[in-house]
Amino acid sequence: MKFGILGSGSWGTALAKILTDNGESIYWCHRSEKVIQQIKARRHNPQYLSTAYFDVSKLSLTTSVEEVIKNSDAIIIVMPSAYAASTLKGLDKNIFEGKKIISAIKGILPDNNILLNDFLKQEFNVALENYFAVLGPCHAEEIAAEKLSFLTFSGIDEAMTHEVAAHFKTDYLNTVENNDIYGVQYAAVLKNIYAIGAGIAHGLDYGDNFLSVLIANSADEMAGFLRKAGVQNIQVGSIEHLHSTANYKQEILATEQRRTNYAASVYLGDLLVTCYSPYSRNRTFGNMIGKGYSVKSAQLEMNMVAEGLNASRSMYLINQNIKAEMPIAETIYRILWEQLDGSGGFAEIEKTLV
Amino acid sequence: MKFGILGSGSWGTALAKILTDNGESIYWCHRSEKVIQQIKARRHNPQYLSTAYFDVSKLSLTTSVEEVIKNSDAIIIVMPSAYAASTLKGLDKNIFEGKKIISAIKGILPDNNILLNDFLKQEFNVALENYFAVLGPCHAEEIAAEKLSFLTFSGIDEAMTHEVAAHFKTDYLNTVENNDIYGVQYAAVLKNIYAIGAGIAHGLDYGDNFLSVLIANSADEMAGFLRKAGVQNIQVGSIEHLHSTANYKQEILATEQRRTNYAASVYLGDLLVTCYSPYSRNRTFGNMIGKGYSVKSAQLEMNMVAEGLNASRSMYLINQNIKAEMPIAETIYRILWEQLDGSGGFAEIEKTLV
Repeated sequence: MKFGILGSGSWGTALAKILTDNGESIYWCHRSEKVIQQIKARRHNPQYLSTAYFDVSKLSLTTSVEEVIKNSDAIIIVMPSAYAASTLKGLDKNIFEGKKIISAIKGILPDNNILLNDFLKQEFNVALENYFAVLGPCHAEEIAAEKLSFLTFSGIDEAMTHEVAAHFKTDYLNTVENNDIYGVQYAAVLKNIYAIGAGIAHGLDYGDNFLSVLIANSADEMAGFLRKAGVQNIQVGSIEHLHSTANYKQEILATEQRRTNYAASVYLGDLLVTCYSPYSRNRTFGNMIGKGYSVKSAQLEMNMVAEGLNASRSMYLINQNIKAEMPIAETIYRILWEQLDGSGGFAEIEKTLV
Repeated sequence: MKFGILGSGSWGTALAKILTDNGESIYWCHRSEKVIQQIKARRHNPQYLSTAYFDVSKLSLTTSVEEVIKNSDAIIIVMPSAYAASTLKGLDKNIFEGKKIISAIKGILPDNNILLNDFLKQEFNVALENYFAVLGPCHAEEIAAEKLSFLTFSGIDEAMTHEVAAHFKTDYLNTVENNDIYGVQYAAVLKNIYAIGAGIAHGLDYGDNFLSVLIANSADEMAGFLRKAGVQNIQVGSIEHLHSTANYKQEILATEQRRTNYAASVYLGDLLVTCYSPYSRNRTFGNMIGKGYSVKSAQLEMNMVAEGLNASRSMYLINQNIKAEMPIAETIYRILWEQLDGSGGFAEIEKTLV
């Protein structure tokens, strides 16, 4: 399996490191020829995660998206969600035929308000069984430092998910597999919204006691959304089996154990690392909002993409259909997009917390 | 309802502040007459949480445990679990007749390996309906600073639980109620074990990515134990109702929603604040173990009680009956009590994480 990477930020650079450390030769797309020359000369990406060094003999560097795709069996797409559509614009509609796509995108495509797999289906007829997500609690800086981290690989083709994951497993990276392809992507989107919430709370001068209550309730709200969005996936068969047994309690327990574990690293773990890290850009953005910055000034000041800002709007719209109870995410949406006062919004959130 | 407090550490002092800020007059037991005189003269507890100031006209201070109990309708017991039995030793067996007990103890009584309610039943014939627990994510320092915090009041007498909680609700303290009296106490015990685990991991130089995976999996392990320990509490009636409806999915969802929410603040919130706080004594203790201190030297060095040390042994023994899968808690037990090497133990934990 030959890998290509579209995306050259911190996380793309971390994934390139993992694969090449594992002996894989990869195609890797960069926008700037100058950066490509610097990587060749200095063996690291000067712009992002510059502490990660490469065996450059394993890198085929190019500015051509098309070249990466054509030379790869599996294409990793790793960039802020807002750039995905424009990066793929103008490509041949059949370019992904016979290819696997591995998404490391932690957001919703803002123009269409859909996940990447739905966009790829729509624009390039990519089937869901050829689509995988790699997500989980992973600061890129800790990959560069080779601190043990966990990534979860999701796909509905379980055998192929296992094969893909195997290429990433190294001494500093453990892999987990699941088949909840929509759930893991929504979780990655939602956690950015809740990290903004944690930041706003911090900016409003709430303490650690409150923060833990807020994050715990955010975890529950996320699980409630995922459960409701994914309710069609519940294995009804196992419930029907209940009829035939007198031992309900055992069966309930067994049924429960077969269900998606929303405390796994790709759900709760990612939420925790994002909400508790003072380096999280979403939390930092939220902190500025809590301190009284307008959304516009906070964006200008940060000069980077806080995925959670667009995500709060996207998830608000998506939840118009799912209709999960999301008082925290909805209040954050209203603070960011409808000029709701931060402290007024949090006074409302307070009432919903348990 | 007249309140008495047995316990004069940080958390006892915080609870005394909450009640007197709410206008309650309380009896409060201190071991030292000198401290009592200092509180009267200086309006604060000089030894613990000295930033909390009192309206001393509301305090009846005494060194007599008996006097506190006899003059109170509801007695708050708030001290390290290891001191509870000796504090109550020698008291009349009927002294708690007609009284309510409110436990703020976050541990298991080490000599008997039982929760306080079982000890009080055994020694003083206190009925479970007269026993309440007040627990949740609450650094005492933030109560002193009047930062908004949440406490959960648990009891099987729901009306009385509500009445007790009402006395504590103030502008900086929100109250939550539930009836999971065993579950909340076990959660308070388990979270100290997992905080030691987080500390060991930090001491062993794991990073934030790993820590979030460990804590998320700890939350799941805790929920698994509580679910299994409390499986007799599942409302089977609601499951039987499944038979009569074709709409399984809706029913499963509704059933799920009636179940205990282990992401609530008293479960997940308390776990988070304890695991993530660099000031948590359990985490600090674990950090020293991870750095290579022996259990004995870490204890000597800290000169304070890390509840999780005894708790790890107690829960290991209790789980011999419950038989929940607890690879994290059991490994921590083996590191602390069976000389298992920390890094070897964590290499085993790594394999179980998802």
